[in-house]
Amino acid sequence: MRRQIVNDPTDVVDEALEGLALSNPTLVEYRREHSLVTRAVPARGKVGLVSGGGSGHEPLHAGLVGLGMLDVAVAGAVFASPTALQVHEGTLAADSGRGVIQIVKNYTGDVLNFTIAGELAEDHAVQTEMVLVDDDLATDSGDEGGPGRRGTAATVAVEKIAGACAEAGGDLAAVAGVARRVARNSRSMSLALAAGTHPGQTRPAFDLGDDEIELGVGIHGERGIARVPFASADALTAELVEPLISALQLHRGSEVIAIVNGLGTAYPLELNIVARSVHRLLAGRGIAVARTLAGTYVSSLDMHGFSVTLTPADADLLPLWDAPVRTPALTW
Amino acid sequence: MRRQIVNDPTDVVDEALEGLALSNPTLVEYRREHSLVTRAVPARGKVGLVSGGGSGHEPLHAGLVGLGMLDVAVAGAVFASPTALQVHEGTLAADSGRGVIQIVKNYTGDVLNFTIAGELAEDHAVQTEMVLVDDDLATDSGDEGGPGRRGTAATVAVEKIAGACAEAGGDLAAVAGVARRVARNSRSMSLALAAGTHPGQTRPAFDLGDDEIELGVGIHGERGIARVPFASADALTAELVEPLISALQLHRGSEVIAIVNGLGTAYPLELNIVARSVHRLLAGRGIAVARTLAGTYVSSLDMHGFSVTLTPADADLLPLWDAPVRTPALTW
Repeated sequence: MRRQIVNDPTDVVDEALEGLALSNPTLVEYRREHSLVTRAVPARGKVGLVSGGGSGHEPLHAGLVGLGMLDVAVAGAVFASPTALQVHEGTLAADSGRGVIQIVKNYTGDVLNFTIAGELAEDHAVQTEMVLVDDDLATDSGDEGGPGRRGTAATVAVEKIAGACAEAGGDLAAVAGVARRVARNSRSMSLALAAGTHPGQTRPAFDLGDDEIELGVGIHGERGIARVPFASADALTAELVEPLISALQLHRGSEVIAIVNGLGTAYPLELNIVARSVHRLLAGRGIAVARTLAGTYVSSLDMHGFSVTLTPADADLLPLWDAPVRTPALTW
Repeated sequence: MRRQIVNDPTDVVDEALEGLALSNPTLVEYRREHSLVTRAVPARGKVGLVSGGGSGHEPLHAGLVGLGMLDVAVAGAVFASPTALQVHEGTLAADSGRGVIQIVKNYTGDVLNFTIAGELAEDHAVQTEMVLVDDDLATDSGDEGGPGRRGTAATVAVEKIAGACAEAGGDLAAVAGVARRVARNSRSMSLALAAGTHPGQTRPAFDLGDDEIELGVGIHGERGIARVPFASADALTAELVEPLISALQLHRGSEVIAIVNGLGTAYPLELNIVARSVHRLLAGRGIAVARTLAGTYVSSLDMHGFSVTLTPADADLLPLWDAPVRTPALTW
């Protein structure tokens, strides 16, 4: 039986956001009424950034609110989109007169509710631009008319780089432009040794045999695209990195930003070993890793697994990546 | 069966340290020969700080090397002390002419090997002071002649505050003094829902029933001091916080630094909920939390559990706590 450290399962989102704010009072503030997390000291005179979506992916998004990243995060219930009204309140809270970028992971409910909120914002004379993140290579069907790829850990890169652009004074079009470029050029792949378990339940979203790995899992308990044999960290990491190299058409001399992301219960020793594998696999192909994030940034409750996200490190992106950031989960 | 993302289990420490350094090239450097992690840019003209011990507690210690914290971390095998020779090399590497503070968790092997290394350092005209961390309240027998309390997550507070004092120009006696005060005044308590599993093994260090919690566990798979019933996050957190309040004789008006520490696979949602519990429990007793760290800092492989560390927030400690720090795992 999988057990979790929670109180009433229906309170997990509220309690976790309260805990985040209590632990980081100089960085963020929690507004319970609409499940918003805002900066403790609101920014003035810059393009605002709002993001959000279902909970269960902590530290995304509330842990990425602060100088150099988001202005506001809007939290839905576990794995459920926030309502259009919540997103509307979040969008208004993110505005300081120069418009608001909505960063949205590509899921039907999120896209719908952020779209409605964008229209509502116009009634309040707040300009918005939606940036869709759809990096999950496992869901790339090539079908133009379909739901498209899911949004996963590239959200961190989009939020970091867009946040730096906004902090530097970029206008709405400039911030939207660089954010869309990062989103368009990033791809992720993930795998799980064990699925996550919804708070209040005792069984994970799906079962795996001792010799099985689920390849291409989503972050909401979605099954993957294939089962592969359990193998070494290096071999498992190659299952993710090789398709990313192909999809992004990386080649000798390419330079990337890499995010090695734990999906919930991958522990630090494992993530460092995977980071080594990523570096070695890419180095072996002549691909340089300009910057690395290795940690738990976009989780799927207590899923045991990891994802790798690669973003080509265009020369103008690195100063934005390196710009100061002060959030509960990411600071430099 | 518990599975892990590793290659050859005998290589986990080497590979994880390599991964850490590859991911953080501007912060740290890995010296394979003696399993040392040093700052990428060595400090000059300050008191050096070296720490270390068995591996399996990541990000401790190597993830805490950098400006404002450690100069050098020395890594042993999983749950095994580094050798005296390794510690000796680490001590010399930490020296830049003003002596070296050795921060040592209270375990027989570590104390022995750091002691020998301290004596060897004298032969090289390097002055050392050992600071023992022994915060684990579960092992407080009151027996003066015994092995004493184990060292656990208070190490983070000791390293942070001592690091800031050294960075500010404190001499060997001043840094040792403040470090010893933090160590002496800090206490921790921990619990586990599931024990950790040694890489290469498939069974955890001990088994627990679905309705059992192990209270007072150590970070090396040591059993606890009691089994208590599985309960809500608030109730479990109270099992840790109440004894800490008594032991530290905290009272209405006291102010503390709190470290809410994941033991390996506690996931972010859980740790934020526990952080809320800690704040509410202390607030209910009129005790203010001046600063909070909530995350995975001192793990025990993939143990599912958490610890709480409280340190009285003496007025002169807060500026040292707040001073800049730039390490892979802790930055502000």
